[in-house]
Amino acid sequence: MESISATTSVVSFFQSVLPATGREALATSVLPALLDSIAAISDALRAAHHVALAGGTNAFGDDQLNVDVTAEKLVREALARCESVATASSEEDPVERSVTSVSSSSSEVYTVGFDPLDGSSIIAPNWTVGTIAGVWDCATALGSRPADAQVAAVLGVYGPRTTAIVALRVPGQQQPLCLDLGYTASPGTGRWDIIHDKVSLISATPPTVRYFAPANARAAAEYRSYQNLILDYITNKYTLRYSGGLVPDLVHMLTKGHGVYLSPVTAASKAKLRRLYELCPVALVIECAGGKAVDAITGQPVLDTPLANTDERGGLICGTASEVDKAVEKLNIGRLEA
Amino acid sequence: MESISATTSVVSFFQSVLPATGREALATSVLPALLDSIAAISDALRAAHHVALAGGTNAFGDDQLNVDVTAEKLVREALARCESVATASSEEDPVERSVTSVSSSSSEVYTVGFDPLDGSSIIAPNWTVGTIAGVWDCATALGSRPADAQVAAVLGVYGPRTTAIVALRVPGQQQPLCLDLGYTASPGTGRWDIIHDKVSLISATPPTVRYFAPANARAAAEYRSYQNLILDYITNKYTLRYSGGLVPDLVHMLTKGHGVYLSPVTAASKAKLRRLYELCPVALVIECAGGKAVDAITGQPVLDTPLANTDERGGLICGTASEVDKAVEKLNIGRLEA
Repeated sequence: MESISATTSVVSFFQSVLPATGREALATSVLPALLDSIAAISDALRAAHHVALAGGTNAFGDDQLNVDVTAEKLVREALARCESVATASSEEDPVERSVTSVSSSSSEVYTVGFDPLDGSSIIAPNWTVGTIAGVWDCATALGSRPADAQVAAVLGVYGPRTTAIVALRVPGQQQPLCLDLGYTASPGTGRWDIIHDKVSLISATPPTVRYFAPANARAAAEYRSYQNLILDYITNKYTLRYSGGLVPDLVHMLTKGHGVYLSPVTAASKAKLRRLYELCPVALVIECAGGKAVDAITGQPVLDTPLANTDERGGLICGTASEVDKAVEKLNIGRLEA
Repeated sequence: MESISATTSVVSFFQSVLPATGREALATSVLPALLDSIAAISDALRAAHHVALAGGTNAFGDDQLNVDVTAEKLVREALARCESVATASSEEDPVERSVTSVSSSSSEVYTVGFDPLDGSSIIAPNWTVGTIAGVWDCATALGSRPADAQVAAVLGVYGPRTTAIVALRVPGQQQPLCLDLGYTASPGTGRWDIIHDKVSLISATPPTVRYFAPANARAAAEYRSYQNLILDYITNKYTLRYSGGLVPDLVHMLTKGHGVYLSPVTAASKAKLRRLYELCPVALVIECAGGKAVDAITGQPVLDTPLANTDERGGLICGTASEVDKAVEKLNIGRLEA
């Protein structure tokens, strides 16, 4: 795995924005370990020309790719070095259990929920894919309100470059932060730099181009108001960008400063996004960027409802706040149609 | 620039499938040079975290990004080493002129038309982008029928990996070929390997998932039959994948073995794709994979109509043959609606 010694300036930044006491391990160990694993996954993917099924299915019944297995291993290896990480669980192994190989004297205690490699269906065509991770301020993510307990989220982005979005919302922190980092590889070492220290879905002026990303468009076959909403975007000349990867689709809107992502749920088309491994981390990112992320059935903020178990799933409407409000209204969300 | 010495097996493959005489330079110089430039562009992009406007516009009035300028330079440098390349032109500099720095004793004479970095709008969000190049069997691409004169096309794909699609259809060649290569970087050198030697849009059994990529969906606001066709795909449960990058959108369908890409033209929404730098190379790739690529106004094969100038543009319907036929019929193409 790459050395992260050159990431000093990023670590200093985390230290400078997080509360001075009680968050040292988050700033200097947990977040750097996640960035380190993203760099390592990126290196592994660059050489992974023969994407193949690993021969199994994960706990959710998805086919596991060889690169999924590698990514899972790399994240766990990185977290094992963090004494403040009490437990971790992932889409591949959704049981919160100890990962740490070092004995802990840390006053900080976290659990990390992660999806090591999101976007399996677009790995073979060499499209951008990602890693999703949420850091929770306790030894379990279950039972507490995610808006309070989840203090950080990281999205790794594997495309022509390797980048990461980091969202921080720690009690006592001056203001929520969303930033964009870039990784530069070099033999034997590597470096993360801050590219944009303020990623925002809020702009002072109306956007010149409006974007929409309609996930699960097939559901619109039965879900008339979803069909009408897609037609509304088309006739109002929104620009379509939909890769089918949750990370690239959200990073697109974050980079452009505008967008709406829709993953509705219907009776025939069940919720597929995992709350712990996908929905909660991305909702924190969107909220820290000034946007909104709501459940596709209730219309309530994703982060308001406590997690009952690690397998919970849901739909998602997220992005620029005014666009989310419009979609919620047009889809009759919370009003029983779907 | 990386050494291409380790690409011997790929060069041997080109030699083995091309006619034994008169194509030595194509197999050992021109195609390796294009692959070499794709490797170099990939390396440049990995470190290009600060995507910025270069301060100018290209000949077509597009804003030029700094990475566009770098990519253009890298392709021209690679072609300059090929004595059989009489001229080259690109979207950035659309005049066929000499690029070669070596004096020629080659009996082969080619011109290369290329788009060094396609997908400017999705570079900032770190989505997969590409390079497009066509190799023509003469010193100019103008005047001849592309189906006869364009003998090879290469698509470079910059995503989590660096890959390339190569299409070959040389007079006297046993059969058209479309293959998929993967690049593995290592310090000071690099290696291209054949990943799939037969990329095909023809399958013996009906596809389990059908894909559609509706470019310029905003045009559907005025173009009623395009709107209806999009609704037809949705209600028939086709899967939407649309990145907005021509290379990744086509590579997606080639990898999955099925798909239809639509870039229609209307009175309000003019043709934007350049025939020499985009349409002809991608049409050759699609045809070599067993698919169809037709003009969005006439419905005629893209490669049937000679190029009158380097600035010609058009629309495109391409992909799995039966899907292209269906789209042409539903869009009333060749029957004057748009």
